[in-house]
Amino acid sequence: MIIVLKPGITKKDEAAVIQEIKHLGYKPHIMRGIARTVIGAIGDEQTHQTLEVLTGWPQVESVMPVQKRYKLVSREAHPADSTIEVNGVIIGGPKFQVMAGPCSVESEEQVMETAIAVKEAGATILRGGAFKPRTSPYEFQGLGKKGLQLLAKARKETGLPVITELLSEDHAELVAEYADILQIGARNSQNFQLLIAAAKTGKPVLLKRGLAMRIEEWLLAGEYVLSNENPNLLFCERGIRTFETYTRNTLDLSAIPIIKRESHCPIVIDPSQGAGRADLVHSLCKGAVAMGADALLIEVHPNPSGARSDAAQQLTLHDFSRLMKELQPLIQAAGRE
Amino acid sequence: MIIVLKPGITKKDEAAVIQEIKHLGYKPHIMRGIARTVIGAIGDEQTHQTLEVLTGWPQVESVMPVQKRYKLVSREAHPADSTIEVNGVIIGGPKFQVMAGPCSVESEEQVMETAIAVKEAGATILRGGAFKPRTSPYEFQGLGKKGLQLLAKARKETGLPVITELLSEDHAELVAEYADILQIGARNSQNFQLLIAAAKTGKPVLLKRGLAMRIEEWLLAGEYVLSNENPNLLFCERGIRTFETYTRNTLDLSAIPIIKRESHCPIVIDPSQGAGRADLVHSLCKGAVAMGADALLIEVHPNPSGARSDAAQQLTLHDFSRLMKELQPLIQAAGRE
Amino acid sequence: MIIVLKPGITKKDEAAVIQEIKHLGYKPHIMRGIARTVIGAIGDEQTHQTLEVLTGWPQVESVMPVQKRYKLVSREAHPADSTIEVNGVIIGGPKFQVMAGPCSVESEEQVMETAIAVKEAGATILRGGAFKPRTSPYEFQGLGKKGLQLLAKARKETGLPVITELLSEDHAELVAEYADILQIGARNSQNFQLLIAAAKTGKPVLLKRGLAMRIEEWLLAGEYVLSNENPNLLFCERGIRTFETYTRNTLDLSAIPIIKRESHCPIVIDPSQGAGRADLVHSLCKGAVAMGADALLIEVHPNPSGARSDAAQQLTLHDFSRLMKELQPLIQAAGRE
Amino acid sequence: MIIVLKPGITKKDEAAVIQEIKHLGYKPHIMRGIARTVIGAIGDEQTHQTLEVLTGWPQVESVMPVQKRYKLVSREAHPADSTIEVNGVIIGGPKFQVMAGPCSVESEEQVMETAIAVKEAGATILRGGAFKPRTSPYEFQGLGKKGLQLLAKARKETGLPVITELLSEDHAELVAEYADILQIGARNSQNFQLLIAAAKTGKPVLLKRGLAMRIEEWLLAGEYVLSNENPNLLFCERGIRTFETYTRNTLDLSAIPIIKRESHCPIVIDPSQGAGRADLVHSLCKGAVAMGADALLIEVHPNPSGARSDAAQQLTLHDFSRLMKELQPLIQAAGRE
Repeated sequence: MIIVLKPGITKKDEAAVIQEIKHLGYKPHIMRGIARTVIGAIGDEQTHQTLEVLTGWPQVESVMPVQKRYKLVSREAHPADSTIEVNGVIIGGPKFQVMAGPCSVESEEQVMETAIAVKEAGATILRGGAFKPRTSPYEFQGLGKKGLQLLAKARKETGLPVITELLSEDHAELVAEYADILQIGARNSQNFQLLIAAAKTGKPVLLKRGLAMRIEEWLLAGEYVLSNENPNLLFCERGIRTFETYTRNTLDLSAIPIIKRESHCPIVIDPSQGAGRADLVHSLCKGAVAMGADALLIEVHPNPSGARSDAAQQLTLHDFSRLMKELQPLIQAAGRE
Repeated sequence: MIIVLKPGITKKDEAAVIQEIKHLGYKPHIMRGIARTVIGAIGDEQTHQTLEVLTGWPQVESVMPVQKRYKLVSREAHPADSTIEVNGVIIGGPKFQVMAGPCSVESEEQVMETAIAVKEAGATILRGGAFKPRTSPYEFQGLGKKGLQLLAKARKETGLPVITELLSEDHAELVAEYADILQIGARNSQNFQLLIAAAKTGKPVLLKRGLAMRIEEWLLAGEYVLSNENPNLLFCERGIRTFETYTRNTLDLSAIPIIKRESHCPIVIDPSQGAGRADLVHSLCKGAVAMGADALLIEVHPNPSGARSDAAQQLTLHDFSRLMKELQPLIQAAGRE
Repeated sequence: MIIVLKPGITKKDEAAVIQEIKHLGYKPHIMRGIARTVIGAIGDEQTHQTLEVLTGWPQVESVMPVQKRYKLVSREAHPADSTIEVNGVIIGGPKFQVMAGPCSVESEEQVMETAIAVKEAGATILRGGAFKPRTSPYEFQGLGKKGLQLLAKARKETGLPVITELLSEDHAELVAEYADILQIGARNSQNFQLLIAAAKTGKPVLLKRGLAMRIEEWLLAGEYVLSNENPNLLFCERGIRTFETYTRNTLDLSAIPIIKRESHCPIVIDPSQGAGRADLVHSLCKGAVAMGADALLIEVHPNPSGARSDAAQQLTLHDFSRLMKELQPLIQAAGRE
Repeated sequence: MIIVLKPGITKKDEAAVIQEIKHLGYKPHIMRGIARTVIGAIGDEQTHQTLEVLTGWPQVESVMPVQKRYKLVSREAHPADSTIEVNGVIIGGPKFQVMAGPCSVESEEQVMETAIAVKEAGATILRGGAFKPRTSPYEFQGLGKKGLQLLAKARKETGLPVITELLSEDHAELVAEYADILQIGARNSQNFQLLIAAAKTGKPVLLKRGLAMRIEEWLLAGEYVLSNENPNLLFCERGIRTFETYTRNTLDLSAIPIIKRESHCPIVIDPSQGAGRADLVHSLCKGAVAMGADALLIEVHPNPSGARSDAAQQLTLHDFSRLMKELQPLIQAAGRE
């Protein structure tokens, strides 16, 4: 930690800071500059208590951490790329993966028709929501267990592994029984109890970035999964909240190279939530592929305008099939299979 | 709902929109303007399915809801101010209330000393965290049940009712056993399962605004409490996330008149989280009082620099006492007791 | 400056950093920590070239400035509050000031009626736009020179000094001829050529905060005024852009204590632009007074719904008069006259 | 325009709204819904005065425009893609273009070396700043006219047309004498006087998106160029300001498909400003190409760590050459030359 002192403070005030640094187990190292005195606090920031308490002291101008706060998710801890396998599908390896399916599971017919069609178009994982977090209590909240059973049926039929959202600690076991990957949604990205419950099921966890989450906070939320003895974590960028109103969110594609630099975990892009508009999905998918994403998570529905949630952003089966063809040359140009 | 059609579409495309409007139970009403055709869909938007599905149709330019999506929290539903009583303390009435105490409960000595001091200074409710949501899994997570017991002991000693945070559905009963008001934190503000669990305990619920939450979404999250048969809801503004880095968050004091206009529920301001800096708390409290807040939620610690969480933003006992004196003339000027 | 090196770099890479630090005139000071090596670069950051170039070096993890980048606007440079006098009206002193008038000057009748009414209600400075920056080229752009003449006439009639916006370097002399204070709008807050041109007129400059401007950038923009030999600078908070859509902007009232802490220049609050809604102006004014603002800048129009710009946010003459009465007890409670 | 009335208002209040609608030249059309009365105001919103004045009326809940506010920049006005030619280089056509060069022109040697190298690597336009807008008045402000002359010399030597920034209305003629494209920077994106001055030179104008600019506002700022009889406008996305601090800005690549949909003008991406970090530039360029951008604007410097501005984000000559090779397969995959 680096502690910058205010100019013109007394020797006594300076001594008090130095004593506190020692008290918390760090070794102080004083540098007298032209305009400020700066104290380096030598010690492992990951095992010692933080010195940020000093921010509140009147003689202290600022406190700056030197070490990163995340460990297990970091490239420093694990320099090679991690890969995650579900039923033979490997995410994070040379093959580019596509997760596709409806926003909500609505009926057997709908999920079956979608699963078969997305598989034929080239998707390798089936997505679908059984428990839905909705802004208003008066909106469709998902089919629950019945939805999970339909997803399992579609998996049996098509062989596609299934990703679905976990909303409640109390459902962790139930959802893990049916799903191959547990999704933690943006609104629950710092619901740490849910992250722990998901991690403890042992299933891979896909962690969406929160609407107002800095990259560092996202990595630290991921740390809750890895530190609960579950090594199978995927990060998923799905748009952050900004002042722009043309799109529902602003998809931050720069998260791809950043996560690749800071972490060994795979990075997945969700352009459907990111834009909130089906007409932008094609273009955003192309960008994600070119920038090195490991997988896409795309909402597809046999009849989007009849969908019970997020109708505006779901692709038709035909659009999805066209998209998959358009992505081929880019996947190759990006050096993926 | 208002549906704006794109210019130059075919009669057939227009007819398809009209049919869908009828299909969803609305009565279409066509207006042909100079540059656009607009269709009004007559019907109760709160009971019919949303027409936002039409956003995805190629012939549709935009879909605009006409009604507000929240009901029970709205002033329309309940024109008079609601008040919430806990152990004789009434929030939302003529008397201005102050909730104060440490960020985290750390020890019996700490919580007792604080409770006695804040009561003496004029606080009427004791706050303190037993379960703490922390950005990193390596930070202090709170004393848990032991912390709740210490809060209960402080209540017994001082008579101050207690507000404390609920983090997990599984703790709802436990926390409700000890607490007089359940606090839902910013990171859980759209953890709807937690909101429902909190509501069902029957205890008053203080709902903090999420870091990226629009006012409308906050009101809708509140709707999850009231629609689960708990009428005792308090909104708490604690700062939103913006580009500014001088403060930890940007406290949006305009939320006070807005909540007063849109809702009947009391509004509480948390300047400690809002600024993340103790040196700004005095000024923010004064603004909140002048603008008509019903209560303040302030972090106070006998020794902030030794605090195990949020050291930078906690007031000393002495500072808190000084603040309470400084607020007196403003509380009177604002017409409160 | 503090330079944090990456872990595990070679001696040669470290030496290169040290040499560059020396090359730029700083004295390096090495601290070897547990996980990182940190180098303090001793030297005046305000006179030496910045070391931020090192951010781009592969062996460097981060570069952190220790000194503040602003000088003349800072409290360190000028510990006492600055006051600005225009025609006997002193801003920044014990008396609270109110600047009021129409968004745009539209006609002699309109500006005269408003000037007389706001003076009677207690305003001490007249505001009014002659040159208007409009988002669309098809909107009313102001009366220009004719508008300035009408403001001058209103000043002659009422004795109120005049504040009006400067939009173009080419108009600096012209506007300075008629106005007592030059306003720089939010969209021009980093139009540095305009700031310099305004400063050089010698008239006091009111600098609005840009929509996406950090406090530090605002202070540095103010530095352009003071470093061009004009000591009469006022900062004006008028709302920043956030994700919230209920209000046009989010008025950041915490700017009041922050500017008071960092700078000696007066701080003015513009609640009309801040909210974009007349119905929130009363409450925001009260907050600003209580929090220690030196003045308010309020849009008032004899007939807001007929206004040629910003109709939604202008107060009627009657509303303004009522507001001034409501502010009285708060001005006193805040210790102002 | 659509005007939504509040529930429960009197007949008289409703009649007043209707009269005002007529007064402003629109034809009112009343729709009585279940919960609200809605009035359609029929008339051309681009030629009539806006009805947004009604927002301030107590009986009005909201006012929603139906038409888009931009005309000349819109696809509706000009369905085909516009192309812009400078010295034989066509932007917006089948060939993908790359503009490259130093952030600031610093010396003849620097600009010559860079120009020759970027041309050899495949760049087709030379960029370089002669007038620099700097956050602090104490930072390097550019070489001014001398810088323009060096750019002209580099053009003569290499044949590359030149793009450079215009900062001041007073320099419009001077800069236009030397430059082939005038760049308007993000901080001046709503400096409408500068936009008009740039448009009037007749040179193509590249308009960067402001840090807090919605797409609609950007299009309207572009309207200032086209409505001043200059048809040669390029939009340039360079990152918006968000809460994220890992990158300097958040590059909003979704601006590419949006501008393509809403406007006929070419879209250019500036990844250097967008990320503020050279290490992310490669990845962002790939995304931009894949998503259909017409050109890139990249900062390149022979010795970035010695650069007098923005050192952290400039590529070396070698890195730039490598980037150009890496982009080849993506340019082809995106169907460009």
